[in-house]
Order: sequence, then structure tokens, then C-alpha cells
Amino acid sequence: MADPRQPLYLDDLAVGQRFETASLKVSADDIRAFAAQFDPQPFHLDDAAARQTLFGGLSASGWHTAALTMRLQVESGLPFANGWLGAGGSVEWPNATRPGDVLHVVGEIIDIHPSKSRADRGIVTVRSETRNQDDKVVQVTTAKLIVFRRAAPAGSR
Amino acid sequence: MADPRQPLYLDDLAVGQRFETASLKVSADDIRAFAAQFDPQPFHLDDAAARQTLFGGLSASGWHTAALTMRLQVESGLPFANGWLGAGGSVEWPNATRPGDVLHVVGEIIDIHPSKSRADRGIVTVRSETRNQDDKVVQVTTAKLIVFRRAAPAGSR
Repeated sequence: MADPRQPLYLDDLAVGQRFETASLKVSADDIRAFAAQFDPQPFHLDDAAARQTLFGGLSASGWHTAALTMRLQVESGLPFANGWLGAGGSVEWPNATRPGDVLHVVGEIIDIHPSKSRADRGIVTVRSETRNQDDKVVQVTTAKLIVFRRAAPAGSR
Repeated sequence: MADPRQPLYLDDLAVGQRFETASLKVSADDIRAFAAQFDPQPFHLDDAAARQTLFGGLSASGWHTAALTMRLQVESGLPFANGWLGAGGSVEWPNATRPGDVLHVVGEIIDIHPSKSRADRGIVTVRSETRNQDDKVVQVTTAKLIVFRRAAPAGSR
């Protein structure tokens, strides 16, 4: 799990800091496999059935898009020293993820809130858009992350 | 996909309507498999590594908890006629899902908003808690769902 990127602590972050991840391709098989396990509804499982619905064709579960967004952010988003440690957040799905879509994430730190009760950490709010190959937004995420400060040198407190 | 339960349309719903799902058990293997695919961070992949972190032991990705919550709701939550069709929502993870946890969801309709532009549908807001076997809340979800009205009989409009 060695990551060559410089790990980021709360002290290293600023509102307005942006990132863009690598991309990944989603297949129809991926969409059906996720749905079979977690969201077994006809429009996520079967293209013919999906054509009879609002989706008009096979579409990924929104939670699949959310999971793929997380993978992209963990692997090539901001390299937080303690990882992407979410306390919660919100998601919107303005467009569906479709078979063959190639997704990437662009994001920005929109708030940094040092903890009042715990001096070693803060809550960092990241807003991101997950976009497909046509730059259509398939997910807007606002995530609240716990990020630690760089540890004080021994004996400094 | 036959569902013996009576399908629910917008016309059938009321604020305050509650539901409780069946339950499912989450194994350490499930947690690691989801993490390997979607959230490859040490605290979701390896118990020994997780003990060195805030989690204190192997913990499921929050997005895994979200996906399991969706499955429970789709399979044994309110049987919306057009399925659980989410436009977005928010999640909080007050406690982590742990290996061996048995999860179920309790939920309630907290808002019903008929669409102004499309007479055939509305947005239904469902607040739910995903709880483990000790009734600890592992996820609070507020989901905005698109729910259709019962179709008008032919010739009635």
C-alpha cells in the first residue's frame, strides 16, 4: 500500500485546494454484479427491463457510483495522511452511470473546521463531482472528513 | 422478481409511515471484499492495521454500510411500485459496521412533495437508521426518492 505521494495533514490543507483523480471504466457486468449484491432492482440488472423505466436503459445503482467515486478518491484524490475517513456527507445523482462510462472525479476543499474538543484533528469538507467521458455529472458529493494534524514532535507539549 | 407485497404509489403514502426491514449478517470477508474493490484503505482491509487507527479494529467502508442499507430497503422496506429510485440524499456514520454485525433498517417517511412540473410523480423523503444487533446506529440516511402516482384509468383524462 506504499503511496509515493506526500501525505497531507490538516496543517497542509487550504480552502480552495483542488484535485482531479485518474479515471476508470464501468462495464455492464460491473453494473449488474453490484446490483445483484446490493441494489437488486430491474433497471440495474437488465437492459430490456430498464428500457421500460425512467432510466431508459441499464443504469448503475447510485450507490455503485458512490463506491466508484470513493475508489477514485482513495487511489488518486488528495493523499490524506490518515486516509479518506468519512463522518458522513451528501450525494446527488443528476445523471445515471451507464455501461461503458469512463468516470473521474474533480474535487475541492470547501471548508476546514478545526475540532474544538480535540486539538489533534479537524473536519474537512470536500465537494466533488464525478463526471463521465462527456463531462456529464453523475454524482455530486459533499463529504465531511476527519483529518489529523501533523503530530507534534516528542516533548513539545 | 415477483414481490408478494402490495406495491405502493404516491397516493398510498403518508408522512409518518414507518417500516422495518429484515436483517443480514456482515462477515469480515464481506468487509474486506467490498474494500478491496471500492475503498482500499488499511482499516477496511486488515484487522491488525485497523487496530493502529481511529477504528481500533477492522471496520466496513461507510459506502459498504450504505450499499447494505439499500439492499435491506429494496428487499424488505416499503415496496414502492416503481422501486427505490433515489435522486440523492445524505448519510452519517455515527458508528462503524464491524465483522459479525447483524444489520437491519428502521425508517419513516418524513416528507412528501408532489412535483409541480410533472403531475404523475412526487419526491418522498425517507429518514432511516441502520442498526446493529445491539441497536447501535451505524448509518443515518435521509433519501429523496421519486415515487409515481397510480396511473389514471384509460380515458379518464
